[in-house]
Amino acid sequence: MTLPIEIICVGTELLIGKTLNTNANWLAKRITSLGGRVTRITVISDDVDEIASTVKEAMQRKNEFIITVGGLGPTFDDKTLQGVAGGLDRKLAVNDEALNMIEGKYRNYVEEGRMEKFVLTSHRIKMAQLPEGAKPLRNPIGTAPGVTIECEGKTIISLPGVPSEMKAIFEETVLPILKRAAGHLTFFEASIQVAGVMESELAPIIDKVMHDNPYVYIKSHPKGTERTPRIEFHLSTTAENPDLARERVRRALANLRELIEKKGGRVKAAR
Amino acid sequence: MTLPIEIICVGTELLIGKTLNTNANWLAKRITSLGGRVTRITVISDDVDEIASTVKEAMQRKNEFIITVGGLGPTFDDKTLQGVAGGLDRKLAVNDEALNMIEGKYRNYVEEGRMEKFVLTSHRIKMAQLPEGAKPLRNPIGTAPGVTIECEGKTIISLPGVPSEMKAIFEETVLPILKRAAGHLTFFEASIQVAGVMESELAPIIDKVMHDNPYVYIKSHPKGTERTPRIEFHLSTTAENPDLARERVRRALANLRELIEKKGGRVKAAR
Repeated sequence: MTLPIEIICVGTELLIGKTLNTNANWLAKRITSLGGRVTRITVISDDVDEIASTVKEAMQRKNEFIITVGGLGPTFDDKTLQGVAGGLDRKLAVNDEALNMIEGKYRNYVEEGRMEKFVLTSHRIKMAQLPEGAKPLRNPIGTAPGVTIECEGKTIISLPGVPSEMKAIFEETVLPILKRAAGHLTFFEASIQVAGVMESELAPIIDKVMHDNPYVYIKSHPKGTERTPRIEFHLSTTAENPDLARERVRRALANLRELIEKKGGRVKAAR
Repeated sequence: MTLPIEIICVGTELLIGKTLNTNANWLAKRITSLGGRVTRITVISDDVDEIASTVKEAMQRKNEFIITVGGLGPTFDDKTLQGVAGGLDRKLAVNDEALNMIEGKYRNYVEEGRMEKFVLTSHRIKMAQLPEGAKPLRNPIGTAPGVTIECEGKTIISLPGVPSEMKAIFEETVLPILKRAAGHLTFFEASIQVAGVMESELAPIIDKVMHDNPYVYIKSHPKGTERTPRIEFHLSTTAENPDLARERVRRALANLRELIEKKGGRVKAAR
């Protein structure tokens, strides 16, 4: 009933803390809002063997989509497709459709006067080398196309790491694929803020509300300072239609509010 | 020569995109600056089996430390220690030192007038249930202590997910442990910005500089717009002493600058 999806982020810049992983956050939010469920995010370095073994592991787990982010460009450290090919036991080969997309991009750059002339260097051909059986996904902004591969009942999608390109390919090509797979699943969420009660005093209340509302996921986030404890509750659900999703969250929220107020807590809507 | 460390972040809020994973970024930066090397970051849900299997997998890989973040609090969805215990095939048991720390915290809250009286509820005892053989790490800010366990030549450290508590325990207790393990390893980094050349034209240059400077890690990040391509290069290294680290990066930077300027590119220091 849910659509399990794994995200694999490739980039040493994420592992040395140079770059904050806003890509994973954006994708997680977008996928959740479409009714998908992100089951795992793995961040690894630009190393072919590491990418291959991570893809192999993900193929063994329960998920329908595996989305990789980063490492599709022309430089030596863009090794994602080589790693994905290795993980799926496929070979890399120049894909004609991808090569046409890339050539077209560079010819435009020449027309626009951004490049003097176009030469198909090995670094440019590299971006057209896809795992066998893969299809390129048009990149409306940059040069390197995205990639999609069907394998053993799963769909593997590779997106570039430049945020604007990742988002553009997702919205144009990946979103319709996921929507079709998710069917009518929709996600609904709401938050409340609670003051005047400590988190450990709220624990049995959450247990009860979760028990009485099995389809609603409730998470508490301590937000206040030491002197003034304040806790945010985030309630969310995925259901087959928006009305059902909204009604489930509304009922859990009402239960939660009643029990918290009985304990002397103050409740207000968050944000 | 390097100190490989894995980070496991536990929290469904990260997988639904509600929370940006600033904890992983902060830890990655901090560990790297100490001479450690983050080899993988895995984000998973608050599910005991998922936590246990992720810890088990990490125990099989080459690393010396495994740091988990999140899920140490008193509520039903704080399941990290149960998962870690499962992953290491150990039992959970009330740890007297941890229980003393927690009781002390609540007695302070009563003295400060933040709580009327202290009752040792099951939710509070829960925070003192550590895997057998574990040691609690003092939490200077919140209630739930951090945890450290030695197992099969590795050290597993569990930190709370509240950023201020995670950072406080890291600085007070984890930093000295990592410094001792890292010995004299230090990290050095520098960035330059390049304009006037496209990334695919720079690819062979980077190949050459990386080849001639094997200890320096070079990563290119496209930063410009479509009309004005601009690329940032980030160079970094870990070495046994700060002078060697600085000299390695300086030499690679000089090589890079020379080759880029030959291609007509403009180079300036970044940030």
